[in-house]
Amino acid sequence: MPRNLNDFLSARSKGVDASGIRKVFDLAAKMKDPINFSIGLPDFDVPDVAKEMAITSIRRGDNRYTQTQGIAPLRDRLRADLSKEFGRDVGEVLITSGVSGGLMLAMQAVMDPGDEAIFLDPYFVMYKHLLTLTGGKPVIVDSYPDFRFHADRVEAAITPKTKLLILNSPSNPTGIVMTEEEVRSAVEVARKHDLLILSDEIYEPFLYDAARGLPSAAHAYDRTIVLRGFSKSHAMTGWRLGYAFGPAEIIAQMTKLQQYTFVCAPSPFQHAALAALDVPMTDYVAAYRKKRDMAYEMLSRKFEIQKPQGAFYIFPKAPAGLTATQFVTKAIDNNVLIIPGSVFSERDTHFRISYATTDEKLAQGCEVLCGLV
Amino acid sequence: MPRNLNDFLSARSKGVDASGIRKVFDLAAKMKDPINFSIGLPDFDVPDVAKEMAITSIRRGDNRYTQTQGIAPLRDRLRADLSKEFGRDVGEVLITSGVSGGLMLAMQAVMDPGDEAIFLDPYFVMYKHLLTLTGGKPVIVDSYPDFRFHADRVEAAITPKTKLLILNSPSNPTGIVMTEEEVRSAVEVARKHDLLILSDEIYEPFLYDAARGLPSAAHAYDRTIVLRGFSKSHAMTGWRLGYAFGPAEIIAQMTKLQQYTFVCAPSPFQHAALAALDVPMTDYVAAYRKKRDMAYEMLSRKFEIQKPQGAFYIFPKAPAGLTATQFVTKAIDNNVLIIPGSVFSERDTHFRISYATTDEKLAQGCEVLCGLV
Repeated sequence: MPRNLNDFLSARSKGVDASGIRKVFDLAAKMKDPINFSIGLPDFDVPDVAKEMAITSIRRGDNRYTQTQGIAPLRDRLRADLSKEFGRDVGEVLITSGVSGGLMLAMQAVMDPGDEAIFLDPYFVMYKHLLTLTGGKPVIVDSYPDFRFHADRVEAAITPKTKLLILNSPSNPTGIVMTEEEVRSAVEVARKHDLLILSDEIYEPFLYDAARGLPSAAHAYDRTIVLRGFSKSHAMTGWRLGYAFGPAEIIAQMTKLQQYTFVCAPSPFQHAALAALDVPMTDYVAAYRKKRDMAYEMLSRKFEIQKPQGAFYIFPKAPAGLTATQFVTKAIDNNVLIIPGSVFSERDTHFRISYATTDEKLAQGCEVLCGLV
Repeated sequence: MPRNLNDFLSARSKGVDASGIRKVFDLAAKMKDPINFSIGLPDFDVPDVAKEMAITSIRRGDNRYTQTQGIAPLRDRLRADLSKEFGRDVGEVLITSGVSGGLMLAMQAVMDPGDEAIFLDPYFVMYKHLLTLTGGKPVIVDSYPDFRFHADRVEAAITPKTKLLILNSPSNPTGIVMTEEEVRSAVEVARKHDLLILSDEIYEPFLYDAARGLPSAAHAYDRTIVLRGFSKSHAMTGWRLGYAFGPAEIIAQMTKLQQYTFVCAPSPFQHAALAALDVPMTDYVAAYRKKRDMAYEMLSRKFEIQKPQGAFYIFPKAPAGLTATQFVTKAIDNNVLIIPGSVFSERDTHFRISYATTDEKLAQGCEVLCGLV
């Protein structure tokens, strides 16, 4: 008897469950002009300087493959900037197709079937699924209710199969930024148990309370793979541009794997990203700080919230007696689109708001949500 | 004792051997202004209409993520065009990040560790490595010396673990185009042994002797995943744009996996690709036919060659007494850069010429190569 088409599907592929977010989108599809707090991208457009450089590159014919690792001027500039930030030569920088491209390459480069990777709950949705693709095992450490890094909880989850500790600061979905002390304790755990750190710093430019730059494990621990990008900082989500740096051996493997998967990041946008590095983002960050303050101020009247210090998310607790999914359904009935925590978590108790929207919509939506309690 | 950094690397990653092509690049790095026959991309630039549409899209702000599957107008147009070509509704079309993106998604969607995929030797280099990434096993069927599809040889290689039959017509590196009869026999084998066909048709527009369009397994067998792209046809190798269609269940899985890896193909270039579909490529193809004729005519005086019918490659046999690598080294010493067959094959007997260069350089290089015999 011939195989059913489903029999052709790999276990890996069937193991990736994308139903959570799909359900929300199905609900959302019925909404007309909602107050949309679901979108994980900036509400401004790519800076003009970057657009013009993309256009110049297209016109002059920079439309062919680049080197696998990306164009030299962009890599050199990032290496120089990062080496200054970290006070040491950070080595070769690999230009990736977005931070998700970097995540995939890093996980494929290090995770064997059965290997374990630890990350905090709540988490960015992709970690789980990308690990599933490698056959690796996601080990999820609860960080409720304060969403901070608790070294003791992480340490309790370590086994001889643990290879990777994934950090995400500023965090999606909580907006929490790890303190220097927390980063130090994460490094201590990694060093003690001989783990690689994968530091997802995609929201690095969006810091609202930092006296200095982002506390990063890469300052103290050279077995850290850092992933950053242009998608969120410069609103280039559709341009697919990020970068990675870290231990030379791992970056070399990631580069080799890129050669057979992503090939290279889109050529004209690599040139544009170089131009984007000269655009000061201070005003954008100031505008987002104001939105963060507004959202926190309004929502904390009615909801239990950890004040976010970065990114553009806030993650309040659903009102007593309701699961997050129940509360989200209520919000959607009232034309406000938010995402239930269950999409980012093993729990269904909180919901995510992206405040990357206009101040008016933000105030309006927070009003509605407070009225539902 | 702490792990050596190499101990962090996955077996999968270490299993991908990229040394063959690397050796050639190392040799090439020493060359000054070589006659370069190594490059697998067109020598013309993206058509102006497509460039201008990319620019319009960037300016008007189409710079954010698109839907995972790609923008609707491009998908709808391709579905209509393809349905006309194949005389049936081909179903949903998935926009991929290049054909290599489609290859990765298809293999991840269907291949489990231990599953086998069959393809002909010589082969496009990526197949082997992408299969290694899935844990699947490449089963390589010799097609020397005529590079045709021999159903009996393929059938002899089938085991109960065989899941996939990969076809590549027009072929890289041989330029051979499967006849309708060969395609029919491939479909018979697939049907009889309950296999999925993955048809890599990236060079589809470059056909030089075809009365009608490309013979494709998708005409006769609906369990065919077809991959095509814009990289080669419209010189957009750096724009990362391809597409896939085939059985709905498989395309749905590939779309799900794209959500967590490539996210989406670059947004402005999706709009540009739609515009590119209206650019007639007849003149380009005619120019390449002329180059094919010139290369074949000159080289067949001194080399054993199968006349290519498509793509922009020709794959002559090295002169008697020399391995391909030895002959390539000689050619490089004489400032002509060609690629040894060992990069695309289990044998080291032939070499690949890409004739996507100017007529002058082509004549000059063929002259030099003939002089070396």
